[in-house]
Amino acid sequence: MRPFSSLIPLEDARSVLREHAKPVLQHVTVRIENSAARVIAVDVEARINVPPFARSAMDGYAVVAEDTYGAGEFSPRSLKVVGVVRAGDESDIKVSPGHAVEVATGAVLPEGADAVVKVERTEITDDALKVFKPVHPQENVSQAGSDMASGALVLKHGDVLHPGKIGVLAALGIEEVEVLRKPTVAVAPTGNEVCELGKEPTPSQVYDVNSYTIMSLAERNGCDATRHPVVEDTLESIGALLDKVKESDVVIFSGGSSVGERDILVDVLAERGDVIFHGVQIKPGKPTLFGKIGEQLVFGLPGYPAACLTVGNALIAPALRKMASLPEGKANRGRFKLAKRVVSTLGRHQFLTVRIENEMAVPVFKESGAITSLGDAEGYVEIPDNMDFVEKGEIVEVVFF
Amino acid sequence: MRPFSSLIPLEDARSVLREHAKPVLQHVTVRIENSAARVIAVDVEARINVPPFARSAMDGYAVVAEDTYGAGEFSPRSLKVVGVVRAGDESDIKVSPGHAVEVATGAVLPEGADAVVKVERTEITDDALKVFKPVHPQENVSQAGSDMASGALVLKHGDVLHPGKIGVLAALGIEEVEVLRKPTVAVAPTGNEVCELGKEPTPSQVYDVNSYTIMSLAERNGCDATRHPVVEDTLESIGALLDKVKESDVVIFSGGSSVGERDILVDVLAERGDVIFHGVQIKPGKPTLFGKIGEQLVFGLPGYPAACLTVGNALIAPALRKMASLPEGKANRGRFKLAKRVVSTLGRHQFLTVRIENEMAVPVFKESGAITSLGDAEGYVEIPDNMDFVEKGEIVEVVFF
Repeated sequence: MRPFSSLIPLEDARSVLREHAKPVLQHVTVRIENSAARVIAVDVEARINVPPFARSAMDGYAVVAEDTYGAGEFSPRSLKVVGVVRAGDESDIKVSPGHAVEVATGAVLPEGADAVVKVERTEITDDALKVFKPVHPQENVSQAGSDMASGALVLKHGDVLHPGKIGVLAALGIEEVEVLRKPTVAVAPTGNEVCELGKEPTPSQVYDVNSYTIMSLAERNGCDATRHPVVEDTLESIGALLDKVKESDVVIFSGGSSVGERDILVDVLAERGDVIFHGVQIKPGKPTLFGKIGEQLVFGLPGYPAACLTVGNALIAPALRKMASLPEGKANRGRFKLAKRVVSTLGRHQFLTVRIENEMAVPVFKESGAITSLGDAEGYVEIPDNMDFVEKGEIVEVVFF
Repeated sequence: MRPFSSLIPLEDARSVLREHAKPVLQHVTVRIENSAARVIAVDVEARINVPPFARSAMDGYAVVAEDTYGAGEFSPRSLKVVGVVRAGDESDIKVSPGHAVEVATGAVLPEGADAVVKVERTEITDDALKVFKPVHPQENVSQAGSDMASGALVLKHGDVLHPGKIGVLAALGIEEVEVLRKPTVAVAPTGNEVCELGKEPTPSQVYDVNSYTIMSLAERNGCDATRHPVVEDTLESIGALLDKVKESDVVIFSGGSSVGERDILVDVLAERGDVIFHGVQIKPGKPTLFGKIGEQLVFGLPGYPAACLTVGNALIAPALRKMASLPEGKANRGRFKLAKRVVSTLGRHQFLTVRIENEMAVPVFKESGAITSLGDAEGYVEIPDNMDFVEKGEIVEVVFF
């Protein structure tokens, strides 16, 4: 057995990963209805004016604004209604002074009109329209190109598509959009102690947990993840899997990174590429391995489920987001009072799982093996390596899963 | 044209929707690798102990704890190593006083041993193991059932599955899980002014925006959304669509809720079911229609894209989340300084789209028709109806999309 000779600080591990995780550059084309949360790969210029024509922004009457000046509750202006334009109508009706045309929201503004009086400010008596409030020119009119002017840059390379941005594409009549290809992640559990779901474990085996948690983590961070069946802890089996997943941007083994019999992954990695770090000052998650084979990133994560997923959240997720060109979440954090005193380990950056109850962060950590400490948790709190406890009632920042 | 006779306050609209939006109760079965963000439909009890056996939590040596008492850097205890157990090994080796067995993390704890000494606290010299630090009984051992005891309730009806909870299922060997069926949402644009993407708009038409934004909004709020082609503003066309989507939990029309020619949806709804409210004191989004046909919720949203999506965020999303049994987001809010003074409308609860720049909330609102005001935005700020402006520098709460 070889113990860890030295551990690198978490911040160093993070900056090493930032350096090695390169954004995927290839494009793929998707229909806009399937583009949510994808990262746009090109700049998009408006190829038409939106709206394409001046239109009414209200239900009401298209008028010559000047005709309404001086109108008031007790001094309405009278106009003659000469027609109606509904949204979608093509009409060559014109508005001349003294006249008005009924218009619906979205209708083309008739020629000659320069403003729209809201229906609520009018009254129809016999043939006459009474206007009770003046409008200024352009009032209640959306000019052609006022939302997007033809030629304007409306979406930029790197924008993450959300309903509003998808709406921008639709407004331009764009059905398909080029987005960045998702990073591909191959996930493989290793170890003779790991049993496939659906099989009967031997008396010394446990079910595979980590490939499912890591796959789910990779997908929620913008990647396409593929699970592979349990790989034996042998040079041959690990080598065979690496041959099979050569096209994958990232390979994540769970188990296979601790000391003991399981230095095999380290040896395979050293032979085929480079071991970049092995052992990180975090708790749980110390025996984390990172290396590269060509441009492919290879991780060995601790076999214990909570340790594995903690490293996933703390180190792998930021690397995957960088590869996927997704920003670090601005919104998934909150500040809460700690519900009870927590003791940490000096010299190890600790990740403490918590649940929010009555606006307090309640620790749910059990031990590094305990998947329930992650199942019950809504997020985690980080305790830096220079602190040995955090007092009850102190404000902590919770990063939500 | 019928103007709105009265508008209901936003909070009333919200509470009406809370009352009418009923959680979907049906279950569907999904594989755990496809269960992320789904809502679990049953209570899950552990059907086995996890771990199923006492195991070593460290790489090291299984010992009788008592043998190590009094050990120190300069007074190591010597033990005889009688074997090795790797993770996954089935071994009948026993540890008796004075003896030790090498164990890997995850290995079954050999009979007779009651603790594990970490490898870092030991040294091998010839045949003898030197132990430099005492361990107490149970130290570095995970007891059978210590993570989940057989019979314990580990996941509850209503839990939203995330990587940690998916890990809990995997740890129990569960491959498939019953989750709540997603609410189904039929989305249909209406209006003769709306042109399908891929077709050439007439000089008085605009491209369909709203069905794409609302579909995307429904999906990110836990629903299955289906888009239907543009529906004409006629009793027959709207009736025909309603006949077609009878199985849908929710129907959302965009356009078709303003006054003017488009009272048709109100009439159809009154005839087939009930109009519950029509007109809400929000800006943008006033002409919002809500009703029911049997248990089906029917919405008519304003045709203007930003107004439509604002109502989607403010009213529809919370209703859909309730139907999907998803909690309201705890994490998607943040407090920021407002970058410039904003003028609102007294008596209308205003939704102001913003982008975050230099930790300030910068308004990006243009006009209610402007989809770019949503395309550029990262979230929105609400200005209550009793305020007519918010000063630059005031702290506002941003709800992120």
